[in-house]
Amino acid sequence: MRHLIDFGDLPRAEWDALYTRCSEIIDHPADFMDACRGRVMASLFYEPSTRTNFSFQSAMLRVGGTVFGFADPKSTSTAKGETLKDTIKMVSGYADVVVMRNPREGAAKAASLYSDVPVINAGDGGHMHPTQTTADLTTITRLRGGVDGLSVGLCGDLKNGRTVHSLIKAMAKFKGIKFYLVSPRELAVPEYMRAFMKQNGMWFVEVTGLETVMPQLDVLYMTRIQKERFVDPLEYERNKGIYVLTKSKLERARKELLVMHPLPRVDEISIDVDDDPRAVYFEQARYGMFARMALLTDLANQSRMKPDAVEIGTRPVCSNPNCITQTDHYLPPLVKKNGDVDCCAFCDAALR
Amino acid sequence: MRHLIDFGDLPRAEWDALYTRCSEIIDHPADFMDACRGRVMASLFYEPSTRTNFSFQSAMLRVGGTVFGFADPKSTSTAKGETLKDTIKMVSGYADVVVMRNPREGAAKAASLYSDVPVINAGDGGHMHPTQTTADLTTITRLRGGVDGLSVGLCGDLKNGRTVHSLIKAMAKFKGIKFYLVSPRELAVPEYMRAFMKQNGMWFVEVTGLETVMPQLDVLYMTRIQKERFVDPLEYERNKGIYVLTKSKLERARKELLVMHPLPRVDEISIDVDDDPRAVYFEQARYGMFARMALLTDLANQSRMKPDAVEIGTRPVCSNPNCITQTDHYLPPLVKKNGDVDCCAFCDAALR
Amino acid sequence: MRHLIDFGDLPRAEWDALYTRCSEIIDHPADFMDACRGRVMASLFYEPSTRTNFSFQSAMLRVGGTVFGFADPKSTSTAKGETLKDTIKMVSGYADVVVMRNPREGAAKAASLYSDVPVINAGDGGHMHPTQTTADLTTITRLRGGVDGLSVGLCGDLKNGRTVHSLIKAMAKFKGIKFYLVSPRELAVPEYMRAFMKQNGMWFVEVTGLETVMPQLDVLYMTRIQKERFVDPLEYERNKGIYVLTKSKLERARKELLVMHPLPRVDEISIDVDDDPRAVYFEQARYGMFARMALLTDLANQSRMKPDAVEIGTRPVCSNPNCITQTDHYLPPLVKKNGDVDCCAFCDAALR
Repeated sequence: MRHLIDFGDLPRAEWDALYTRCSEIIDHPADFMDACRGRVMASLFYEPSTRTNFSFQSAMLRVGGTVFGFADPKSTSTAKGETLKDTIKMVSGYADVVVMRNPREGAAKAASLYSDVPVINAGDGGHMHPTQTTADLTTITRLRGGVDGLSVGLCGDLKNGRTVHSLIKAMAKFKGIKFYLVSPRELAVPEYMRAFMKQNGMWFVEVTGLETVMPQLDVLYMTRIQKERFVDPLEYERNKGIYVLTKSKLERARKELLVMHPLPRVDEISIDVDDDPRAVYFEQARYGMFARMALLTDLANQSRMKPDAVEIGTRPVCSNPNCITQTDHYLPPLVKKNGDVDCCAFCDAALR
Repeated sequence: MRHLIDFGDLPRAEWDALYTRCSEIIDHPADFMDACRGRVMASLFYEPSTRTNFSFQSAMLRVGGTVFGFADPKSTSTAKGETLKDTIKMVSGYADVVVMRNPREGAAKAASLYSDVPVINAGDGGHMHPTQTTADLTTITRLRGGVDGLSVGLCGDLKNGRTVHSLIKAMAKFKGIKFYLVSPRELAVPEYMRAFMKQNGMWFVEVTGLETVMPQLDVLYMTRIQKERFVDPLEYERNKGIYVLTKSKLERARKELLVMHPLPRVDEISIDVDDDPRAVYFEQARYGMFARMALLTDLANQSRMKPDAVEIGTRPVCSNPNCITQTDHYLPPLVKKNGDVDCCAFCDAALR
Repeated sequence: MRHLIDFGDLPRAEWDALYTRCSEIIDHPADFMDACRGRVMASLFYEPSTRTNFSFQSAMLRVGGTVFGFADPKSTSTAKGETLKDTIKMVSGYADVVVMRNPREGAAKAASLYSDVPVINAGDGGHMHPTQTTADLTTITRLRGGVDGLSVGLCGDLKNGRTVHSLIKAMAKFKGIKFYLVSPRELAVPEYMRAFMKQNGMWFVEVTGLETVMPQLDVLYMTRIQKERFVDPLEYERNKGIYVLTKSKLERARKELLVMHPLPRVDEISIDVDDDPRAVYFEQARYGMFARMALLTDLANQSRMKPDAVEIGTRPVCSNPNCITQTDHYLPPLVKKNGDVDCCAFCDAALR
């Protein structure tokens, strides 16, 4: 692994190696206190994200590295019309690893083309957020001994949730997973995710109620439902209570259930759930830090490497208006296959 | 000591131990260069405060620790409606010690209920600012050999000054202090501070002029008078010159006087005082850093500890509109006694 | 050297020593990993400058030091009317070296009068930016073996470019330099720069076209031409293409030419030049970091030293409206000679 742009690019064996190191770090943190000594991380947050930003920073500091960067591009001159390419050429001259959050889809992939050092995608718009997935899998593996064979409930807005889609895709690397997809009909998983699960032989069932499936679950992954996602406000009023997890709903759940949430929550988990030992969402955030420590000990210690020259683009081949190629026209016209479909190699949108 | 929320909670013996370590750090800083190695401080400034923020950061760095955080919540997603509890659960998963400045009174106490690691109050609205008091006491002890028996002039706005009230309360831990309280009548110390001094057998006199008491003083603690505090603008015009310390006013002062100020000053100390050896306000800022180094070597090295579950509140018992319980309704309805009075355990306001 | 305010203050021997250390750092970075261990840099950016800020931060971190500071004074209380003197007294109590970028000319010199620790000028308005010059000279020396005897093309806006003026002045420390000054007539070097080159016996020629001089050049230093600098917009339209460097214009250039640029570029260097081995502007940014590492290993390790008391000013002697003395009236009325001319010792403007 040179960059981490998309968790899907990671073979199962690399994930296993990453988790093994992560697990060693959790058990013996002092052994890794100098693992990134002398190494510098650039933290480029083109949109605010306290949680991910803090998690990466504390991760780098805990393995003995150091950090510079910005948390909000408004206070930097980077906002003033410099291309992403030029920013990355500069920053990768100063840093040993670049962590980037950017509102444009495919921005991390674009950065990786020009960087002399590894790039980690800390979220590129609605596209990918691979280190959230590493946090989720670390939590499950650590607390349940493994991921294979688990019954996983995904609850809330399954249509728009980047986190949920990434997790489903990542789960294809494991065996015997059963998915209980709990959502209002209008916020069900998109058809292409359904196709993905079928293609990969993954068992799943779609329901609208949480309570009936509760006793089956090993993991319950809650996500937020935004009122504004509903076309019909009455539909929202009818539904909203169903997707709030309360202490009483947990009564029928298994004793070893894990209640997870990518955070921040709004009100989809009632505060009286926090003291239940099955509520592990705060531990999940902490495991995310350990997973990032493992990742950084690998990537921040790689040698500098001039990337190959790439073709200079002139206009975007992709029609996704949020794709990085829409603003940065010099990017090469890269295409990849997702299954049989020609897709933009930056944002994964199907090409027309 | 697990948290530092209120300097008043610190027994004299703990202060003595803290000062002893601080003094060792001042004399032998190199011995403490690794005292917090591997430890990470979260610096959460919900309102800007360059001075306190820089002092804590440099303190942590000088004992070998590292820092992440925000200096202004506007550029973080924390601003977007997450509860203080959830922020603290997350941050205390990443950090070994949390330093927090928050505009709401009682916020640091609230944070301490949920944090897995020690919390240090870096100012909670108009309520407490305990590490300013440690800076003040360190300066006096270091430069005068001790606090007992000193004659201390407090000059300026003694009605609204959080710093002055904290210092008076802290002085109750020492013996034989004489207070010369110099202020316009309308900005005299509040009645409850007067009661406090009487209760604790502390000698004090209230005057409106600085010059007459000047020859008596061992310490002169200047504070800013804000024009807008005066009801009558003419009263302000009559008074303003009295409370500006100039080089000539220092002529009648003792040779070993300490002129102190919590900074930033506006114009209450004339710039020609700066080169007088009795002007120690810049040293005072530096001693504040050493005091914070001592504090951090203690608190940042404590073990993580899950706090006990606390009752979930529903509505505030306190009627102080600036109290943290007014915005964070889940906080438990904690009450404490200040003397005979039932008070809010967060902001110390008397309950009705 | 105690402070670095103006590159012109540096004798050739000191530059040689600085470059020698810089060169050792480039060759053996691991030997310098602890060169500033325990040392803390304050980074005070009163105006945003991602590039310079990141370069200094990564430099300090790579020699084992640590950093605190602000990237934008809007989010600090420093903005609220504290004098520069008071801010510097405070910050130099916390830090071992102060790096400051400030929009007012002479601000770094002013800071150096009050600081207990070395001050490095990271840009004071349109006045000086000495570490950009160290970056430029390091790049040339490293890649061409030395500066003496080179033919240097300076292209673009030579009238307003602070970087270009500093570089010309710095080149006076070397022998046998030939300058090819390429600019539209209305953006030619100012008369006082022309006088400076003559005084110092430096060879130069002024031309409007880049292509004719291209074959002569060892170094081509490109700068940005801002449209708004032209009085006549038609003149801009006629000229703009001339000063854009493209791949095809490089065909007639020497094989060992260095194409340099202080960055960020807008469109004065076409993106197809980036992959030409003669394009070294991104390396130049990286050499800037190494030059700052060398500088910091020297300055951050000096002992603290109380500066001598200075006269308290009352009103500015300088009439430059951007001079720091216009806002900070307490500054002493310092005058220096530039050649025969009495100049403000802060901003170098000639006194009337």
